[in-house]
Amino acid sequence: MRIDGRKNEQIRNVKVTRGYTKYAEGSVYIEVGDTKVLCNVSIEDKVPPFLKGKGEGWITAEYNMLPRSTGVRKVRDIARLKVDGRTMEIQRLIGRALRSVVDLKALGEKTLWVDCDVIQADGGTRTTSISGAFIALVDAVNKIHKEKPFKVYPIRNFVAATSVGIVNGEKVIDLCYEEDSTAKVDMNIIGTEDGEFVEVQGTGEESPMTRQELNELLNLGEKGLKQMITIQKNALKMDALWIGTGE
Amino acid sequence: MRIDGRKNEQIRNVKVTRGYTKYAEGSVYIEVGDTKVLCNVSIEDKVPPFLKGKGEGWITAEYNMLPRSTGVRKVRDIARLKVDGRTMEIQRLIGRALRSVVDLKALGEKTLWVDCDVIQADGGTRTTSISGAFIALVDAVNKIHKEKPFKVYPIRNFVAATSVGIVNGEKVIDLCYEEDSTAKVDMNIIGTEDGEFVEVQGTGEESPMTRQELNELLNLGEKGLKQMITIQKNALKMDALWIGTGE
Amino acid sequence: MRIDGRKNEQIRNVKVTRGYTKYAEGSVYIEVGDTKVLCNVSIEDKVPPFLKGKGEGWITAEYNMLPRSTGVRKVRDIARLKVDGRTMEIQRLIGRALRSVVDLKALGEKTLWVDCDVIQADGGTRTTSISGAFIALVDAVNKIHKEKPFKVYPIRNFVAATSVGIVNGEKVIDLCYEEDSTAKVDMNIIGTEDGEFVEVQGTGEESPMTRQELNELLNLGEKGLKQMITIQKNALKMDALWIGTGE
Amino acid sequence: MRIDGRKNEQIRNVKVTRGYTKYAEGSVYIEVGDTKVLCNVSIEDKVPPFLKGKGEGWITAEYNMLPRSTGVRKVRDIARLKVDGRTMEIQRLIGRALRSVVDLKALGEKTLWVDCDVIQADGGTRTTSISGAFIALVDAVNKIHKEKPFKVYPIRNFVAATSVGIVNGEKVIDLCYEEDSTAKVDMNIIGTEDGEFVEVQGTGEESPMTRQELNELLNLGEKGLKQMITIQKNALKMDALWIGTGE
Amino acid sequence: MRIDGRKNEQIRNVKVTRGYTKYAEGSVYIEVGDTKVLCNVSIEDKVPPFLKGKGEGWITAEYNMLPRSTGVRKVRDIARLKVDGRTMEIQRLIGRALRSVVDLKALGEKTLWVDCDVIQADGGTRTTSISGAFIALVDAVNKIHKEKPFKVYPIRNFVAATSVGIVNGEKVIDLCYEEDSTAKVDMNIIGTEDGEFVEVQGTGEESPMTRQELNELLNLGEKGLKQMITIQKNALKMDALWIGTGE
Amino acid sequence: MRIDGRKNEQIRNVKVTRGYTKYAEGSVYIEVGDTKVLCNVSIEDKVPPFLKGKGEGWITAEYNMLPRSTGVRKVRDIARLKVDGRTMEIQRLIGRALRSVVDLKALGEKTLWVDCDVIQADGGTRTTSISGAFIALVDAVNKIHKEKPFKVYPIRNFVAATSVGIVNGEKVIDLCYEEDSTAKVDMNIIGTEDGEFVEVQGTGEESPMTRQELNELLNLGEKGLKQMITIQKNALKMDALWIGTGE
Repeated sequence: MRIDGRKNEQIRNVKVTRGYTKYAEGSVYIEVGDTKVLCNVSIEDKVPPFLKGKGEGWITAEYNMLPRSTGVRKVRDIARLKVDGRTMEIQRLIGRALRSVVDLKALGEKTLWVDCDVIQADGGTRTTSISGAFIALVDAVNKIHKEKPFKVYPIRNFVAATSVGIVNGEKVIDLCYEEDSTAKVDMNIIGTEDGEFVEVQGTGEESPMTRQELNELLNLGEKGLKQMITIQKNALKMDALWIGTGE
Repeated sequence: MRIDGRKNEQIRNVKVTRGYTKYAEGSVYIEVGDTKVLCNVSIEDKVPPFLKGKGEGWITAEYNMLPRSTGVRKVRDIARLKVDGRTMEIQRLIGRALRSVVDLKALGEKTLWVDCDVIQADGGTRTTSISGAFIALVDAVNKIHKEKPFKVYPIRNFVAATSVGIVNGEKVIDLCYEEDSTAKVDMNIIGTEDGEFVEVQGTGEESPMTRQELNELLNLGEKGLKQMITIQKNALKMDALWIGTGE
Repeated sequence: MRIDGRKNEQIRNVKVTRGYTKYAEGSVYIEVGDTKVLCNVSIEDKVPPFLKGKGEGWITAEYNMLPRSTGVRKVRDIARLKVDGRTMEIQRLIGRALRSVVDLKALGEKTLWVDCDVIQADGGTRTTSISGAFIALVDAVNKIHKEKPFKVYPIRNFVAATSVGIVNGEKVIDLCYEEDSTAKVDMNIIGTEDGEFVEVQGTGEESPMTRQELNELLNLGEKGLKQMITIQKNALKMDALWIGTGE
Repeated sequence: MRIDGRKNEQIRNVKVTRGYTKYAEGSVYIEVGDTKVLCNVSIEDKVPPFLKGKGEGWITAEYNMLPRSTGVRKVRDIARLKVDGRTMEIQRLIGRALRSVVDLKALGEKTLWVDCDVIQADGGTRTTSISGAFIALVDAVNKIHKEKPFKVYPIRNFVAATSVGIVNGEKVIDLCYEEDSTAKVDMNIIGTEDGEFVEVQGTGEESPMTRQELNELLNLGEKGLKQMITIQKNALKMDALWIGTGE
Repeated sequence: MRIDGRKNEQIRNVKVTRGYTKYAEGSVYIEVGDTKVLCNVSIEDKVPPFLKGKGEGWITAEYNMLPRSTGVRKVRDIARLKVDGRTMEIQRLIGRALRSVVDLKALGEKTLWVDCDVIQADGGTRTTSISGAFIALVDAVNKIHKEKPFKVYPIRNFVAATSVGIVNGEKVIDLCYEEDSTAKVDMNIIGTEDGEFVEVQGTGEESPMTRQELNELLNLGEKGLKQMITIQKNALKMDALWIGTGE
Repeated sequence: MRIDGRKNEQIRNVKVTRGYTKYAEGSVYIEVGDTKVLCNVSIEDKVPPFLKGKGEGWITAEYNMLPRSTGVRKVRDIARLKVDGRTMEIQRLIGRALRSVVDLKALGEKTLWVDCDVIQADGGTRTTSISGAFIALVDAVNKIHKEKPFKVYPIRNFVAATSVGIVNGEKVIDLCYEEDSTAKVDMNIIGTEDGEFVEVQGTGEESPMTRQELNELLNLGEKGLKQMITIQKNALKMDALWIGTGE
């Protein structure tokens, strides 16, 4: 039995609130257990310098924990004049995850700014951010699409994320903070509706993992991704992504 | 008639949610119209260097707007490596307002960290922050007081804030963003339950104001502060602050 | 009797030296008692990005204390890589004060950079900065006006500042540092020759003030502003601002 | 056939120079093909604040590319006042990899500083850094061990890293820059001599990968890690790590 | 004939005002022609970490140009978050110059902070800073010495600085800005009353100088140093430095 | 006898490796005794803002010590968010030295970026950087010249640098670290093949030097520069710089 009574392959309760703030083109408040993240997607009609004139778009993500999203108050980055290394790592991960399912050429010369602000952290903030940000991204893209349809709809696939790990010798899914802090192995898995992997980020810092352990964790991760993508579809009230041309 | 149908001396609807996050000693989500601010108060058992060994406590405030709390996405301070000047001005104001009603000697060698993170901005974020942060501060102080009573209860008075201004020739209270951006005069008023003023910050940048206009605005402000303090009391389910010794 | 022998409604001795440095378009060294501030105004023929193409000008102020302008050496901002919060607050105040009496459309696409560098601080550096910077601003604007007259002369009114406060139960004007550090209430008042208020920034951090106290302090402030504007006129050898068109 | 004539499962030529600089306790210049990294390990007799008094040691890594290690000159971080996000991600990876095979309690209150400075980059700089830094770490630890033996020898296992990817439909190992920039999938694999995985960081940003592709890449990675660990042993002239107590 | 009518070996008019500000232990306003620098020396009863417990003192200098000390307004360092390279070079030079004539052991565990703030720049700001800062340093040291005499008086010698250069083929001393900007060679010479050199910093960036030119410039420099040291003595009303023990 | 057995006028062994890295237009690894510096020169087809449209080029240098190039690990500048003052001073010196022998008009609108990264430091890193960077600069300029000849070959003269000093009463050349740290006087001399001086930077911080000592040190420096320029010629396999037009 897990600390919060869940089964090993059971993810935490998820609650998705779309349209959470009124200005962002896509705004999702996602709660996975006690982890709560506000994911806002903003659209800007220009691209970073390295893409200028290439007819392609870009997706960039920023991740931030509010100071008291954690048990001990976390000093703001600006007070130290440095972005925390972990924050950097996570926001790069979110950006890669979302770009992997978006056709940046179809998007055209736009930048989608994805802001994931953690309101309360209880483990899995990076996977929660990805799963929630994808929903906000769909809302933002659809907002444009309704006003002025894309020739090719730019989102190619659903993408979601979950964590798996080995806790007290058990392979479990979607670790809460208390599990995470005692896990022997901790792995973040990001994948699509088609069962393909976008990124597998497994860390066995405390103790390495065998090939067999890795395989079992991947099996578990696949189950979690399916659950999460179903939740995304329900929240979006969509069975499938918009298909084909904008006409 | 005002843009949102309110009367001149009517503040916007206020909603207060206490205990919004689970870690902070005091955590209040306050909504004043469409302005929404998360106010978290954290307690630290040490004081800044300039107070070490003096037996006094301190209250320090940080204010921050989430990037998409506004109509156009605001670049994070850390991306520019600079705290925005307006942010600095506001967080200093919040700190002064709260310190004015707290007996820092009675508080003892503790620092209260007040984090006001604006989730959605529609005018009056600084006054909303002060009004909400006071409630969170009471919760945080009472949490300590219940565990280990203060000899003298350190909060001396209620404090709240509101804005007043001259919009289209009318003197109005609690300006929303649209009113604020066309106001001839804009003034923030911070005061106590006893009808005393803690800070009066009036700016007539567009056009100066006469002494009579100032007086009428102060009258209006007094009405708004009363309404806001009543709301604070209802939210806290208290008629008065804890009185006397902790015994 | 006040600590330096002044009467309650008497401001300190003021000395104004125009043309203090040879490069700045307007350069004023102002001494109010032992507070000494160098106010330089520079003219730049471009505007900040948010005003580009709007045909309007801008006024921006920077305030800085030299390291040994104070009793204890103050570390330079650059050594900490951060602008001090108080500095930010003050330079924003100076900017708003000056913009309130300038017709930015009449100024056209120019930026006036106002640098207030405190050489020696003995209370009231922000009000001294405003009073001195206004004189330097007039000199800078007139320098342009003589070379190539504005269609509409852009300065609409005199503006000056002074402080008032309650010290040892007495309401006094233009507090020196020693008075300021024991004041129960401290308020900065900025106003025009017409007796209108531009900004009223009253702080009762130590103890709130009643409405009546506020009124009496405003009365006192009005007297101080008149004295200071007379001094400005004498320094500028002008009875009134340039009027009408440049022809 | 690969661009440089290698077979799919063949890593590039590796050259290891120990004792490259004279001051560092461990100093290794490692060349993997045209990728060249200087790995210096320094020992400091204190630990970061979060470990003070716990009797444990720490390993921290810094990664940096020299400005002209790349085809286009890269601006130094200090010129932008920001650590590059990719750099952050990599130095955290190096730190985790090395800590996973070191018994930090056995190390005692020491910090090992690992500096990986890329002299020339041609793909795989992060995996090269890990493989080279491990050798330098062994040299540094042995230097202490010879002078004053540890009770328990703190290095528990060899650790090395390599990359695998799918290039032109072929699964290949140890990608050079040109392969890397056209790879459909790119994965960094870090593992021990015992065939266990420390971290698996697979990114399918361009296109996700199926479970079968992932499995085949892991197989390939295992082969590469064996080759690299053999090279590490040859360079160190050791068949196995020092075992048991220091007596 | 030089641009301002001086002879080749003639330095500009020098005016020294001691006790310019009231807080600094030594405060000198020095004017060399139109170059005007405020030199404040502050005493702190502690030393930088690298000297702790060694019983020695330290002298550290900071140099800064006010924004409008120059023809075109100079952006403040803090606005760019970087100390200008030239500023760094100069403040290191000032520090070395002053330390060269002070017995840091005799000074004991104190830091002398030397702040040179350029009010107006017309060439030779670094040499003016050194010559003026020395006078302020003497005042600061004597202030301590009078209160609590040093066992050994810590200032060993007078030190001053001047510049020499080749302008329009003529070797001249103490270049003003206009001369400096057309000089073929420009050299700063720092020396003592005994005719010894502390630093010779000759730059022939535009065109190298021959050994003979160098010799003639050094001859000229020696003359300038003598003039400047006489001025220092007159300003200090001292013929010689305090000698011997404090008893 | 010197600590490493050299004669007073003997420079250390010098080893020059051209083409050290494969990307830089000029890449030289220079070893002077145990001091080892990688000097890379990169060419960029644009100039800094202050030269735009003037038809001239620019040379800018960056100097950096790798963290473990020294006996005690040096914290990276980016970790402190500040460029070290000594670093600033040195990179400005390198830039001036190289610009003094290059005809920037003949170079045309190009920037030469000179990166001197110290791999191992044992005294004289700044002079080693200049001597090595000049060779890399010749290689970079010749690379352009071969592809598209300059009308006027832009390098006018060889430039090299060495240090001289007074150690244990002896005047010696090319000080190693141990000598440098006990030197009474330390001077860096930069000069051309024609025996002209580009910069003479003499510091007698510990104790000033007499005019006669200065003369003898300059004599010694001239000898060292000749030796170093001969080494540069041998490394470049050139007796003289490319002369005349590119046709």
